[in-house]
Amino acid sequence: MIKKIDHIAVAVRDVEKAAEFYEKVLGLKLGGVEEVEGMDVKVGFIPIGDTRIELVQPLDPHSGLAKFIEKKGEGIHHICYEVDDIHKALETYKAKGAKMIDETPRKGAHHSLVGFIHPKSTGGVLTELTQPADS
Amino acid sequence: MIKKIDHIAVAVRDVEKAAEFYEKVLGLKLGGVEEVEGMDVKVGFIPIGDTRIELVQPLDPHSGLAKFIEKKGEGIHHICYEVDDIHKALETYKAKGAKMIDETPRKGAHHSLVGFIHPKSTGGVLTELTQPADS
Repeated sequence: MIKKIDHIAVAVRDVEKAAEFYEKVLGLKLGGVEEVEGMDVKVGFIPIGDTRIELVQPLDPHSGLAKFIEKKGEGIHHICYEVDDIHKALETYKAKGAKMIDETPRKGAHHSLVGFIHPKSTGGVLTELTQPADS
Repeated sequence: MIKKIDHIAVAVRDVEKAAEFYEKVLGLKLGGVEEVEGMDVKVGFIPIGDTRIELVQPLDPHSGLAKFIEKKGEGIHHICYEVDDIHKALETYKAKGAKMIDETPRKGAHHSLVGFIHPKSTGGVLTELTQPADS
């Protein structure tokens, strides 16, 4: 059901500033930057191998992401896995005992559908599932 | 110079226990588990796509990793990139202004050579570089 890691998300204060390490030091390239409707975040993706680093910047200072940065500083925020059927994945993982943040999918970046599993059932790792728009 | 993400490391109290979420819920498979000589850790790799989740358990209660778990709980610890030449990578990234934890490589899991970049120069992400034994 899981195809690959879609992205590893890094919470940052400023996407373009954070991208400098990846571009100037590591020699990777920042792809498109977009604001995600309804999630109040600005995201920039850095492709690498079959996955991507997602730099994610809160636009709402009262959001969970903004509080994460305020409390813990910038850093790795979650891991996102690509699944072929997000509805089935959320249902199956819940049935297997995972504590879900989302029981039904919501809209993510690039017109994908996404859902989150609570870190309590994953050994502390906020875990996102995504079904890309084209799958 | 960077080929792909070698692994995403998750700090855990117990590799086998932490693997249960990945195996029973997500349906992924835990590969070999090994103790890494000189680093006082037990690691278990879960292959996915062209990368891996590394579950890493401290064996020394006074280590940085043990303190990380004590302070922040289990969770994502670092991202590791595969490079073709670890000596050249550490030298190049230092020359480009990255604050290095390791200026020369040390031994990692599976007879690899590894080096770390300090989170201060990476936007809060502890960043490891690895040259696998077979490259």
